[in-house]
Amino acid sequence: MRHDRISVFPIHPPVSLIVQKYGGTSMGSPERIREVARRVARFVDEGHRLVVVPSAMAGETNRLLGLAKELNPDASARELDVIASTGEQVSIGLLAIALQKLGVKAKSYTGWQVPILTDAAYTKARILAIEERNIREDLDAGSVVIVAGFQGIDDDDNITTLGRGGSDTTGVALAAALKADECQIYTDVDGVYTADPRIVPEARRLDTITFEEMLEAASLGSKVLQIRSVEFAGKYQVKLRVLSSFTDVASKDMGTLITFEEDENMEQAIISNVAHNRDEAKITVLGVPDRPGIAFAILGPIADANIDVDMIIQNASTEGLTDFSFTVHRNEYKRAMDILEKKVKPAIKAKGVEGDDHIAKVSLVGIGMRTHAGIAARMFKALAEEGINIQMISTSEIKTSVVVDEKYMELAVRVLHKTFELDKPPSKETMKP
Amino acid sequence: MRHDRISVFPIHPPVSLIVQKYGGTSMGSPERIREVARRVARFVDEGHRLVVVPSAMAGETNRLLGLAKELNPDASARELDVIASTGEQVSIGLLAIALQKLGVKAKSYTGWQVPILTDAAYTKARILAIEERNIREDLDAGSVVIVAGFQGIDDDDNITTLGRGGSDTTGVALAAALKADECQIYTDVDGVYTADPRIVPEARRLDTITFEEMLEAASLGSKVLQIRSVEFAGKYQVKLRVLSSFTDVASKDMGTLITFEEDENMEQAIISNVAHNRDEAKITVLGVPDRPGIAFAILGPIADANIDVDMIIQNASTEGLTDFSFTVHRNEYKRAMDILEKKVKPAIKAKGVEGDDHIAKVSLVGIGMRTHAGIAARMFKALAEEGINIQMISTSEIKTSVVVDEKYMELAVRVLHKTFELDKPPSKETMKP
Repeated sequence: MRHDRISVFPIHPPVSLIVQKYGGTSMGSPERIREVARRVARFVDEGHRLVVVPSAMAGETNRLLGLAKELNPDASARELDVIASTGEQVSIGLLAIALQKLGVKAKSYTGWQVPILTDAAYTKARILAIEERNIREDLDAGSVVIVAGFQGIDDDDNITTLGRGGSDTTGVALAAALKADECQIYTDVDGVYTADPRIVPEARRLDTITFEEMLEAASLGSKVLQIRSVEFAGKYQVKLRVLSSFTDVASKDMGTLITFEEDENMEQAIISNVAHNRDEAKITVLGVPDRPGIAFAILGPIADANIDVDMIIQNASTEGLTDFSFTVHRNEYKRAMDILEKKVKPAIKAKGVEGDDHIAKVSLVGIGMRTHAGIAARMFKALAEEGINIQMISTSEIKTSVVVDEKYMELAVRVLHKTFELDKPPSKETMKP
Repeated sequence: MRHDRISVFPIHPPVSLIVQKYGGTSMGSPERIREVARRVARFVDEGHRLVVVPSAMAGETNRLLGLAKELNPDASARELDVIASTGEQVSIGLLAIALQKLGVKAKSYTGWQVPILTDAAYTKARILAIEERNIREDLDAGSVVIVAGFQGIDDDDNITTLGRGGSDTTGVALAAALKADECQIYTDVDGVYTADPRIVPEARRLDTITFEEMLEAASLGSKVLQIRSVEFAGKYQVKLRVLSSFTDVASKDMGTLITFEEDENMEQAIISNVAHNRDEAKITVLGVPDRPGIAFAILGPIADANIDVDMIIQNASTEGLTDFSFTVHRNEYKRAMDILEKKVKPAIKAKGVEGDDHIAKVSLVGIGMRTHAGIAARMFKALAEEGINIQMISTSEIKTSVVVDEKYMELAVRVLHKTFELDKPPSKETMKP
């Protein structure tokens, strides 16, 4: 894209509108904030127009919510948002004055000053609309505009927050509203990897990953981006890039670009990465009568208790009885078991309820799976050769997940990374189906 | 007032609307915030309607401004206000949830949510108007309303702050707007004293002090109330009370009430208190030609440099020459001397400029001075008997101030406290002129 522009207008440099989001670690100290300011200034020097979304300084949100919890463990969500939103407000002011110190014109905006309108779901609000007129005026006046992440207001002028990682969503939503050329997410990792480098030392950084793959990877526990921000980017076709704020300011390292599948001439491997997640627990209801409505009879009470269910598996029935398995977040495991034992089991006359909260989910993610047969089979074979028992299997178009005993998680990730040669850059040949 | 109401409506207890302001030390820790909540709850239990204005937790504003200064010593005032205003925002949320924990309905308001409208003078804004409709609705709905002190917004929705001690002004302004029965300022001292108890152990707490006396005492460095809040209270006739948040919650101690002079049946001493101030420096321009316009020729350049002048004294002239003395804040001393030496002295052909930044101002304050002759004479005699040389004298209707060598300050305060028997409660006789 950039090159196209340069060739069309060779004399004028390409001026683009970039939204940059900086995470809490990037904003963690005055020295770190100065680094962020220098990075922003570099882009300004290159002629770009910038909207910057900083998170709260690392640790600040936890400190604030810790104070709140000490005073009232059941605090009203409205007031928690009043408290928590101050972290980002401090950050926008500090970043603005750090930029001014470098001679860069900068102006800060809280969520309500933009305004960023959300629903009224305190602590996990969703952005409904962004009024971009004020920001655009300041950009036109030559200012860097700094917008507080993570926050907004509802229809009644109450302060809301978007939940953990919400600043990613603020960045993407602003990029969508402003039709920015790119949304850059600066964090303490320098991109998306083929696997967690702490588990697989040979893990390789991906230059690109598709939105679909990123969505699967994010929901599997890769902590790089808030999943909602990725959905948002997909919905509004925002070009999203994950980069490190810890590389040298002058570095032209471009991290990992999250692309749309349609970008055909991107290099694309069959398998993008191996993701893992040890936040889940497995529950099996045994000896369930195999009749219509049984899945709802089991999962209805779980949903009523506001417990999210991830994988769901129902085996073929034997003699009119089947086993019904699913996974929940480990934090909800006890509560879910309780509901099943006390309410569901007697109601549906199941034979028993079993649970295990020492499991891990390991997944292969890659859009190549759609067109390549035999990926799952190779995956199961590789795990079997290492003696790793598969407890559950679930597949989507671009992902195959297995549940294994938690103690085999690292081994499974390494085996799959090796089997699918993720340490090697994809060749042009492997790209084509 | 309260007794009148009780006798008129003997069955219904008197329900009043009270604005309570709590200082930073009172909000200094979760434990202290719980104490504030218990105190507020007691008033609610007694049937009062409450609006509460908390300051930022002690040290928080300095921490935030310290971060800002580290990043940019010449930070834009707009951004400093964005940063500093978060301290109070955290406090309102924390106090709201602490009250909710006690079963008291409570809702927080930031400055912009009220809204509290100010001028655009960042870091020292003045309140122009308060829209009290939202607050009144919540009060009617049975809520304690908690409003962030120290902050507001200007016409363009920029965040402003009111300067140090600004939460006092927020409290008084809210009391004025809501026509509250009383504005209670809770602080770490339990009232206004006849002198600083650290200097005069026998200093006595005053049950009442007039607004005029309080204004003089505040401007003389008594740190109990922000001077602007006292002016505000005087202007809008808000009944103001200074109390301690460190007394037992159940205590009925009523601190010091700041009264209007018109409250005739209040006990009223001739002298209210001895105030002191060591923040000033003295400057004398010697051998100045005594001609019209000379005061302006000296003080004009000082005012142009934005240096505030406190006492101004011009002696009678001898042979057409006079000495011209004034005091400035000690922080401005060097800058003022510089201007006088370099600009003023050559321009007006003065003989010399002398300065002394080791002085202290000691003042007697009392509305009784208006009607009692000889107070100043007794004051000068008492100081002379202790060998304390008076360097400058300045008087107002209800105050007599002297400048002495700094080393005599404590002695002077003690001598005057004793001479005017401020350790003894005023008798009815001493009250009447």
